[in-house]
Amino acid sequence: MKHPYLIVLGVFVLAVWSAPPAEADNEQVVPKQFTVYPIGQIKKQDRRTTIILDRKYQPGLLGLDGFSHVYVLYWFDRNDTPRNRSVLQVHPLGNKKNPLSGVFATRAPVRPNLIALSLCKVISVRENVIEIDQIDAFPNTPVLDLKPYIPSIDTATATLPEWLKSK
Amino acid sequence: MKHPYLIVLGVFVLAVWSAPPAEADNEQVVPKQFTVYPIGQIKKQDRRTTIILDRKYQPGLLGLDGFSHVYVLYWFDRNDTPRNRSVLQVHPLGNKKNPLSGVFATRAPVRPNLIALSLCKVISVRENVIEIDQIDAFPNTPVLDLKPYIPSIDTATATLPEWLKSK
Repeated sequence: MKHPYLIVLGVFVLAVWSAPPAEADNEQVVPKQFTVYPIGQIKKQDRRTTIILDRKYQPGLLGLDGFSHVYVLYWFDRNDTPRNRSVLQVHPLGNKKNPLSGVFATRAPVRPNLIALSLCKVISVRENVIEIDQIDAFPNTPVLDLKPYIPSIDTATATLPEWLKSK
Repeated sequence: MKHPYLIVLGVFVLAVWSAPPAEADNEQVVPKQFTVYPIGQIKKQDRRTTIILDRKYQPGLLGLDGFSHVYVLYWFDRNDTPRNRSVLQVHPLGNKKNPLSGVFATRAPVRPNLIALSLCKVISVRENVIEIDQIDAFPNTPVLDLKPYIPSIDTATATLPEWLKSK
C-alpha cells in the first residue's frame, strides 16, 4: 500500500461528515419524555382528608407547617389512557353551555400531561401525614409534589373570559 | 392413577393460595411511575419571552387569550439526575441564613419530581405561540402544561413562616 495516510484521511473526513450538525442554542434538542414518581397518596377517611407521603420523603416536609396553604400537584390517574391524553378541546365542566375551550384554557382532568393543581389549606403536618381541608380528587390519587403557597409570587390581579365571570 | 381429582384439587388450592390478597380500597396499588411529555419550550429572544407549543397541541390554546394570567408548569430539566432528585432538604434560595427546609416547603429546583410552577401574565396568544411577561426559567426549558389562573380557586388568605415574612 503506497499511501496509507489516504485511508486515515478518508476515515477522518467520513467521521466529520457523518457527525450530527452542531445545535444552535435555541434549537436545543429536548428529551421526548420525563418520568414522575408518586411521592404519596390522597386519603379520605372519617371526614378527614390527608396526604400520606411515602416514609422516605418525610424529610421533605420540614417547615411546611409554617405555611397556611400548599399547592398539591397530583396525577389524574384514572384518565391515564392514550385517548384521554389526546383530548385537546372540551366544554369546561362538561357543560355544553360553556364555550368549547382548549384544555390549556381549562382545568379539565383530560390533557396531554395529567398533572392536577389544587391550592389547599394545611390543617396539620405530623410525621409523613399532611391533613388538608379538602381536595377535589378521588381517594388514593397519587401525589407528585407539594409546594408552599407564597402570595407575593402566586397571586395576580386577573381578568377572566366573560363566560367565567358569572361563576 | 387412582385419584386424578386430587391433582386437580391440588392445582386449584395452589392457585388460590398463591394469588395476591384482595386489596382493600384504601390500599389500592398505585403505578410506580408516570410519563410526561413536553408540549413545547420556553424561548427568550429580543426581550420577548414566549412559550412555543408543538404545533400538534395548538388546538389546546383555544380561549386562553381570555385569561390575563396562566400557570406554566415546566420541567427543571437541567436538574434531572438521580442525585438532584434525591435532595429532600435545602436552605431556600441557597442562602444559609434561611432555615433548612424540606423541599416540599420550598420552591427549590431540586425535588423528587422536577415540576416547576410559575404564574405568568399573558401578553398574547397567536397560533402556537404564547407571549408572557417573564418567567424565571432557562431558555429552551421544556413546558409540560398550561392552566388558566382562576382567582376564586387559586387564591387564599395565607400566612407564612417568620423567615419569609420579611421577603
